[in-house]
Amino acid sequence: MYTLGVDLGGTNTKIALFKEVKKIEAKRILKTKEYKSKRILINKILESIGDLLKDNNLKNKQIKGLGIGVAGPVDFERGFIYRLVNVKGWENVPLKSLLYKKLKIKTFLDNDVNLVGLAELKYGAGKGAKNMICITLGTGVGGVLILEGRIYRGSHSTAGEVGHIPINVKGPRCNCGGEGCLERYVGNRYIIKRARDLVKKRSKSRILKLADNKISKITPEIISRAAKLGDKTAIAVWKETGYLIGVALAGLVNVFNPERIVIGGGVSLAGDVLFKSIRETVAKRAMATPARQVKIVPAKLGEDAGLIGASILATSSKE
Amino acid sequence: MYTLGVDLGGTNTKIALFKEVKKIEAKRILKTKEYKSKRILINKILESIGDLLKDNNLKNKQIKGLGIGVAGPVDFERGFIYRLVNVKGWENVPLKSLLYKKLKIKTFLDNDVNLVGLAELKYGAGKGAKNMICITLGTGVGGVLILEGRIYRGSHSTAGEVGHIPINVKGPRCNCGGEGCLERYVGNRYIIKRARDLVKKRSKSRILKLADNKISKITPEIISRAAKLGDKTAIAVWKETGYLIGVALAGLVNVFNPERIVIGGGVSLAGDVLFKSIRETVAKRAMATPARQVKIVPAKLGEDAGLIGASILATSSKE
Repeated sequence: MYTLGVDLGGTNTKIALFKEVKKIEAKRILKTKEYKSKRILINKILESIGDLLKDNNLKNKQIKGLGIGVAGPVDFERGFIYRLVNVKGWENVPLKSLLYKKLKIKTFLDNDVNLVGLAELKYGAGKGAKNMICITLGTGVGGVLILEGRIYRGSHSTAGEVGHIPINVKGPRCNCGGEGCLERYVGNRYIIKRARDLVKKRSKSRILKLADNKISKITPEIISRAAKLGDKTAIAVWKETGYLIGVALAGLVNVFNPERIVIGGGVSLAGDVLFKSIRETVAKRAMATPARQVKIVPAKLGEDAGLIGASILATSSKE
Repeated sequence: MYTLGVDLGGTNTKIALFKEVKKIEAKRILKTKEYKSKRILINKILESIGDLLKDNNLKNKQIKGLGIGVAGPVDFERGFIYRLVNVKGWENVPLKSLLYKKLKIKTFLDNDVNLVGLAELKYGAGKGAKNMICITLGTGVGGVLILEGRIYRGSHSTAGEVGHIPINVKGPRCNCGGEGCLERYVGNRYIIKRARDLVKKRSKSRILKLADNKISKITPEIISRAAKLGDKTAIAVWKETGYLIGVALAGLVNVFNPERIVIGGGVSLAGDVLFKSIRETVAKRAMATPARQVKIVPAKLGEDAGLIGASILATSSKE
């Protein structure tokens, strides 16, 4: 059984042919911003799908479905893209029907973080969970709720914005219009800022050496590498980051009582030092029963999670 | 069609006979703490049910079901009470099976706030909503999530603890073991404290007059009355309270994207001044799309909401 998955992101657009839902047979990667208009990119996606099928001697009618994940708000029911984050010209695009018209392959479209959650649920760190929260840590902090085994989308497809839970009544202004949102403390640039501020005071930190002694070159990856080498400043950055994530998760544990929380995205690669801090904070701050039951684990499927989720979505039975 | 509802609270235990699910035909109210042991109270509940049936010429087999709401954590599946809040001797009670053995009436048991939510959904301020959050403001701050038309209980029946969302990373210690929880700012006693602190500085406030000039006699009801008379101090108390509730709800609106939030409990009787502040804060702090869609409304069913919810639960089809 073959499916197609598309992961439409602000940086890369990935297109893959899958066998038995989860095995990638072939993949194409496009640089989203190299295509000057959405029409040109959509044509290139169609061309790539055509190539993948041709290379594998497949006809459209042999494909069970096409799933599309989008980095931005969408209307799942209508397969409609409201906006592609950081890419202009992608406002209000009925991508599902545009592709269906050309391909005649059953098509579904969802938010990319939702699909990461779906993939982790079926084949990754969420396997077997009934109620699960999946969060992705990167430039932004994304989230998806899997409730009673299914993606919970809310009344207008906007649910899951875990990054925009206020963790302080008075806090710094967030891009979303709110104040004191989790993302405003643990989004990439704020982690980097935390590290920079500390490094200014502790100039012997390995972080600075790994960044060629340039404070402007500090990245979450560098902070992770320094932490793994035992650098105290880097460890402090991750502990504080984990603590702030843990405070937000404590609230979610009290409200949702999930059995699992799966954490992915680039920042999650900081590993044990980050996860230990998150787990300790949740254990301390959330209510006893749900805190004891919840397992907080790293995502397992890595960068292709969104594509795999798109492939799972492609097998949906609803039209 | 007849049903029975029991609302087992820390102060009162109400028992009612319902016709057509929502019409109370007859009701008994017991003072929970006047009964020295759970056995004595359970016998009194059974006796009251017997009286209600006898007075209405009904036999047990004419009753479609019995629903029980409990002020405290329960296991819905097993009909098991972990604890009755503020009443000793009610730990780990399999009340559902105890009552079923005696009555042979199909019995269901749930947390009381869940049943308030169910009642508001079917017959009250939540009518027609698919995704709804119901919160109750009183000594504690309770909550229930109605997702896709059904009570969401979580993995271990503890979901919905809206009162224990941290709204500040560093905040006062809460009874639940957490810090900076919503309840720790807007539970009855903290609203009273806010009023007392203000009244000490503004001794002309109507609040003080309505409390017989005794700061110790200030209650939320008095603050509400003063606010309705235009007292600026009282209005400030409710504005601040609404603001804090609004910050927590902004997070929930971002995560759940519900179409309605229903607010009940004694404190909600403060009315417009409180609701206006909550709505303005959510409009300002939550993300644009879900904030625009959500309606924040007062509960409609008053003190019998829990009993009505118990009656609705009694009509459940699952055994």
